[in-house]
Amino acid sequence: MNFIAIMAGGVGSRFWPASRESLPKQFLDILGIGKSLLRLTYERSLNLVPNENILIVTNAKYRELVMEHLPELPVENILCEPSRNNTAPCVAYTALRVESMDQDGVMAILPSDHVIMKEKEFEVRINEAFKFAKENKALITLGIQPTRPDTGYGYIELGENGSDDIFEVRSFREKPELEKARAYVDDGGYVWNAGIFIWSVESILDAFKKNASQIYEVLTRNRSVYGTFNEQSYIDLNYPETEKISVDYAIMERAENVYCLPADIGWSDLGTWTSLHALLDKNDHGTVLLGEGDTGSSRDSLIRSHSSEKLIVAEGLDNFIVIDEKDVLLIWPKDREQEIKQLRERIDQRYDGKYS
Amino acid sequence: MNFIAIMAGGVGSRFWPASRESLPKQFLDILGIGKSLLRLTYERSLNLVPNENILIVTNAKYRELVMEHLPELPVENILCEPSRNNTAPCVAYTALRVESMDQDGVMAILPSDHVIMKEKEFEVRINEAFKFAKENKALITLGIQPTRPDTGYGYIELGENGSDDIFEVRSFREKPELEKARAYVDDGGYVWNAGIFIWSVESILDAFKKNASQIYEVLTRNRSVYGTFNEQSYIDLNYPETEKISVDYAIMERAENVYCLPADIGWSDLGTWTSLHALLDKNDHGTVLLGEGDTGSSRDSLIRSHSSEKLIVAEGLDNFIVIDEKDVLLIWPKDREQEIKQLRERIDQRYDGKYS
Repeated sequence: MNFIAIMAGGVGSRFWPASRESLPKQFLDILGIGKSLLRLTYERSLNLVPNENILIVTNAKYRELVMEHLPELPVENILCEPSRNNTAPCVAYTALRVESMDQDGVMAILPSDHVIMKEKEFEVRINEAFKFAKENKALITLGIQPTRPDTGYGYIELGENGSDDIFEVRSFREKPELEKARAYVDDGGYVWNAGIFIWSVESILDAFKKNASQIYEVLTRNRSVYGTFNEQSYIDLNYPETEKISVDYAIMERAENVYCLPADIGWSDLGTWTSLHALLDKNDHGTVLLGEGDTGSSRDSLIRSHSSEKLIVAEGLDNFIVIDEKDVLLIWPKDREQEIKQLRERIDQRYDGKYS
Repeated sequence: MNFIAIMAGGVGSRFWPASRESLPKQFLDILGIGKSLLRLTYERSLNLVPNENILIVTNAKYRELVMEHLPELPVENILCEPSRNNTAPCVAYTALRVESMDQDGVMAILPSDHVIMKEKEFEVRINEAFKFAKENKALITLGIQPTRPDTGYGYIELGENGSDDIFEVRSFREKPELEKARAYVDDGGYVWNAGIFIWSVESILDAFKKNASQIYEVLTRNRSVYGTFNEQSYIDLNYPETEKISVDYAIMERAENVYCLPADIGWSDLGTWTSLHALLDKNDHGTVLLGEGDTGSSRDSLIRSHSSEKLIVAEGLDNFIVIDEKDVLLIWPKDREQEIKQLRERIDQRYDGKYS
């Protein structure tokens, strides 16, 4: 059987002040279409696998939120990490749960807070990857054709074209300098690592055993708990001990059997307000208003209100991000948005977490 | 006896969206010091006359608000106009009420929404005017030494220096073009008309009889009602019939016995957000933040939050007005603030008065 595990434990701090500790990005209707990013990801997954085969992996404190956003999902399909240990332990835990449901299972890992515009193509590609992962002992990552020399993503150097569409991976390249990013884009043989993975339970657990044995050992001390009432208490007790490391570092960069399936799926990781601005329809002045009001001749700006009841009247802004939340108003130059993450930390310290 | 009548019926539409139909400028803590402009005017008046001799003239719908802001004031001292008929009927009504309390009374008329920084000097000048008005059949207006060729004020051309400090008035000049305003300032013989008047009840009622007889006639059909329980119903019935005209047009520009007392009292009519910005202490970048937060390197801007609970974080603004209300956020170029009044009307029409 095929499974989909949606990773929904992040904080989305670059989307502050809309994204908060108590209500991170994946729970927001960030596109202004009436559905949260998590909900959109879930509905996309329902086209691929049955409801019972969708798992949400999140932090314990977001359990209620997930239930609220996905009321149809069986509650036992919400996996709660008791601590934030990065993505590798998260993936291993999920694989062990899927193993308890079907030891021959194949699974896809999806981030909960990305945008995929070409849903049909996404479906085709994931099914293709499911098939390849079922027939081959392969760790597959979806590759996105780069459209600009972005320094915010990891790049994958493609190797041999093994199957029709699926390439071997020659190397992973961490977030590069601009110079290098340009070279990768010009070369044409590099794609972005979107954090979307497909593998069989057997392949990924073997990869953990071999490449991240500490995590494997901690989480398989008692393998019989997965899928039982004892799972949560076992996880609460043992999971915090696991090494805090990303699945990219722990597995993808170390394993031999790594493949990449390039996919043109209209993907955006919505990493920043600017990427949201780039994605959405703009008015004649290049401005996006998410909310009620009038932005006049304001240019190249993204202006967002937290409620349709709040009227926004702006004039004369040029290249700004304006995020109005109930308790915070942020007005920030769009081309300096990389500072928002540190800004959030400064505010956090100054106001003792009140606005985090 | 001396009396003070505070005019508190205005709407303050140039201070939208902070100033609303339901809560106009005079009821706002616009300086961010914990007291409304009305409260400040009232407290200033208590230095000059006893509490019972202070009258507030306002629109019927603001009666409760006045009681809330001035709980010590006897409720019968709140005069309510049933309709907005400009300042002349307002002044005549007030004079008739004062006459019922003391037919030899002398009264000062003060706007409720101005700022006076030099309180001691203000006290000295008003007392000087009270004295002159008691001894002379004079209509006195306070004159403010112009500091710039402002085209938003009326100017008073000073004539002979009658008493020590008090000048005859040669002419009133309506809001002039910039060219003329410059000439007035250079000349030195012109002062701003601040809308602060001092006269005896007898002098002003005589002036109405002579120069604005329609208003006088309507309001003295039954002169015995003033100060009695029948006053309000009489006013409700008759007041709306009075001519809608300002006291400047109706009286000051027509009467013979008009005098001006120049006064250096740190006056501002707080007519616009820019005048508020000019008045308040600014940071090193010329920016004023009324509220909690950080304006970074934002320059020459006025940023105001409606509540200390709302954090404002701004960066990179230059010459902007940012007014954050619970239901409206206004971001507007400071040098285009003369458009705010019409903007308010546009919003009013588009949203059917919801944000007015």
